[in-house]
Amino acid sequence: MNKIRAVIAGYGNVGRGVRQALARSRDLELAGIVSRTPDRVKKELDDAVPVMPIADIPAWVAALRPDVAILCGGSKQDLPKQGPELVKFVSTVDSFDNHSRLPEHFHAMDDAAKTSGHVAVISTGWDPGIFSLERTLANAFLGVRAYGFYGMTANGGLSMGHSDALRTIEGVQDARQYTHAIPEAVERVRRGENPDFQPGDMHTRECFIVPKPGADLDKIRETVVSMPGYFAPYKTTIHFITQDELNSKYAGFPHDGLVIASGKTGDAGHPADIEYHCRWGSNPEATANVLVAHARAAARLSGEGRNGAFTILSIPPAYLSPLDQEELLAHWM
Amino acid sequence: MNKIRAVIAGYGNVGRGVRQALARSRDLELAGIVSRTPDRVKKELDDAVPVMPIADIPAWVAALRPDVAILCGGSKQDLPKQGPELVKFVSTVDSFDNHSRLPEHFHAMDDAAKTSGHVAVISTGWDPGIFSLERTLANAFLGVRAYGFYGMTANGGLSMGHSDALRTIEGVQDARQYTHAIPEAVERVRRGENPDFQPGDMHTRECFIVPKPGADLDKIRETVVSMPGYFAPYKTTIHFITQDELNSKYAGFPHDGLVIASGKTGDAGHPADIEYHCRWGSNPEATANVLVAHARAAARLSGEGRNGAFTILSIPPAYLSPLDQEELLAHWM
Repeated sequence: MNKIRAVIAGYGNVGRGVRQALARSRDLELAGIVSRTPDRVKKELDDAVPVMPIADIPAWVAALRPDVAILCGGSKQDLPKQGPELVKFVSTVDSFDNHSRLPEHFHAMDDAAKTSGHVAVISTGWDPGIFSLERTLANAFLGVRAYGFYGMTANGGLSMGHSDALRTIEGVQDARQYTHAIPEAVERVRRGENPDFQPGDMHTRECFIVPKPGADLDKIRETVVSMPGYFAPYKTTIHFITQDELNSKYAGFPHDGLVIASGKTGDAGHPADIEYHCRWGSNPEATANVLVAHARAAARLSGEGRNGAFTILSIPPAYLSPLDQEELLAHWM
Repeated sequence: MNKIRAVIAGYGNVGRGVRQALARSRDLELAGIVSRTPDRVKKELDDAVPVMPIADIPAWVAALRPDVAILCGGSKQDLPKQGPELVKFVSTVDSFDNHSRLPEHFHAMDDAAKTSGHVAVISTGWDPGIFSLERTLANAFLGVRAYGFYGMTANGGLSMGHSDALRTIEGVQDARQYTHAIPEAVERVRRGENPDFQPGDMHTRECFIVPKPGADLDKIRETVVSMPGYFAPYKTTIHFITQDELNSKYAGFPHDGLVIASGKTGDAGHPADIEYHCRWGSNPEATANVLVAHARAAARLSGEGRNGAFTILSIPPAYLSPLDQEELLAHWM
């Protein structure tokens, strides 16, 4: 069987994770990497990996002959513009994660993919992605809402978005933000209360900030805790530390989360509880693994002549698996 | 929108659960119940529910006009024969749960459904069913095997199959069997050992047996612990109790289970762990809720002109949900 040829579009932490995940895959292979900064990417890799500029799409599609492009750019700047352009030439998978603009991204990708006859799998990873699936299934089976908690472990989960927000503040040299689930909130859901939470009722935020020399710490503190959306609604703790301490104690990209739904079945109201918990030593690598499984699905859907946009909710789960139907029936059902 | 009309075929504990779940559904309704013993079923229900003999399939299909039949018979005697007969006349959903004969059941249903142009969703419930999906997804994302444990709670989970097996023993008046996960085995999986377990390494079995008056308890005990498949491979505890004690302390159908997979991501081998845990106050009602969600999917697939056999792995998850695409994109992704 020919392997599915995947191009990585954008080479940051997620792109690196995708390269490593493709190397472990039995049925996909790396066709090449395309980037706005190919020279930077080439320095990281051995010469065997083709690296091309992303801008001239027809050129790299012709040279690398991808079945699918795995888009590893950011949701804010890259994907809304890049996605609809790329899917004119090749089927795509992305991890667009701006929940409020997700329908808009779906329809933009759907229109472009239908016009060109390609497949666009959007917004996959662990949230949106796996967690979207688990929320939807819990609702379909129990008829209740499902709650998402993040940072159940002692250290909490590293939020890239909130870390980036801290780094934009005047006087901040570097920073990392860890999200913590509030245990009492989890327990309320477990008890079946189905509470109507505000954001600040579910999570707290812990910031490790390296100030620039001579920076006004009180001003930084005030700017953080009053930042709308990111920190203002939450109980926020701030630690000022040195760059060495940040680098040694708060390296890496750990994250974890919990989907939890508590319902009842039957006229007697028997309790029915579902919990899905994942823990990732590396958040971008976890996202990368999920992207690669969906690249497999995109190539299969495209091979069947399907086109348009898909999410994890509209793809038969078997399409994500490297195993064939008979093996799934015999050993995995 | 017209509601999906569902017939319940077979009215035991699961059938009762399906009736209660349909009553809570916004988009499905009970068209009627068909049974080998309609007189028994009529006694349980008010006159508004049509109850007909299952044997004359064309008659009840014509009278009740179902979009889908939810088959609530047993996997041993009922479904292998009944399923392929019924799907000649109407799309079906079943919870066939004999894992070793599952491919055979799939192909029998697939052939009959394709010939008649109907849809047959097979082997759904929580295992096979939800757990099959979670195992397959964990493997697709992490490339490792996924383990299933049952009876994580203090009381363990009630196994109907093992309870039935105990009741076939000479001198046994009544009995119930609770399965317990072995906590050390769960911890080994959590530690990422990916152990190669034998069945007895993962679970123990606890039996509550009401002996008939004058029965030989030692002989019962010996028959239980040496029963191949059911008890011989397991550490098995036996308690002889009275019928009153069984009825008061060990009533109901509680069960629970855990799917757990422990892998690594990337070249550095970052830990990646997934756990899916469900707890059901009523095992047959949980199965019923999952069956009803799949009845919705069967009706939709059939409405699109699809036919043949499906499992939870071959159905887009959105088909299980009562919510439409735009609502799912906006609020559930």
